[in-house]
Amino acid sequence: MSADHNCIFCKIIAGEIPSAKVYEDEHVFAFLDISQVTKGHTLVIPKAHVKDIYETSDEIASQLFARVPKIAQAIEKSFNPKGINILSNTGEAAGQSVFHLHLHLIPRYDETDGFSQNWVTHNDDYTKEDLSNIAETIVQNI
Amino acid sequence: MSADHNCIFCKIIAGEIPSAKVYEDEHVFAFLDISQVTKGHTLVIPKAHVKDIYETSDEIASQLFARVPKIAQAIEKSFNPKGINILSNTGEAAGQSVFHLHLHLIPRYDETDGFSQNWVTHNDDYTKEDLSNIAETIVQNI
Repeated sequence: MSADHNCIFCKIIAGEIPSAKVYEDEHVFAFLDISQVTKGHTLVIPKAHVKDIYETSDEIASQLFARVPKIAQAIEKSFNPKGINILSNTGEAAGQSVFHLHLHLIPRYDETDGFSQNWVTHNDDYTKEDLSNIAETIVQNI
Repeated sequence: MSADHNCIFCKIIAGEIPSAKVYEDEHVFAFLDISQVTKGHTLVIPKAHVKDIYETSDEIASQLFARVPKIAQAIEKSFNPKGINILSNTGEAAGQSVFHLHLHLIPRYDETDGFSQNWVTHNDDYTKEDLSNIAETIVQNI
């Protein structure tokens, strides 16, 4: 299990920085985000230090997300939100600020609860052929 | 493998509705979101029909997320975005519109690319004791 000694999340896992822990096992650690964008806002992280989704092995990804349903269910049971957003940001341009892979679980209560997303759809900007070409490019890089 | 015959994503998996497919294996299917919030915007879904994160088994969650790093890497290699957002919305209040669990992979190019998030932090609204109580409530419900 590799840790990065400059990483705040590795320090939280090690107990060097205190946190409000909600879950821990051999591979995964979960704790409240101190910013509490909404009540119950939780971070789920792998114990291994991986920077972001690009650097994550299939095995770590698998272990990490396997714990998400039960933590989400526990948040739901605890605070009865109307929904929950799960997010993971890779790269500063996507909003990542701590460079240790993490999933945000953000329970949602109403439209003014602290979190929202803006989606601009582009259904009319792409032909069927455009979509086919984009998909084919991705397929060739998998 | 259970399918819901009223579910648009089950129909896409079955090939009854065409899609721009980027990945498929025994458990997981990935295709372009026709709204293309940003170029390369991809949906990764389990083949089994599960409504949302609350209804997802650990096994399905594990299989689903295990495929995300390689698909994210392929999107990165294809279009060289500055980052990528991974999102999954459970509940209408959280923005869910198709009730078959799905992960959005949204490559990010710049601040006007079609997607953004608003986060209101509440660091000063919760004492250490408040956080401890919230965490304890979740722990008791896991």
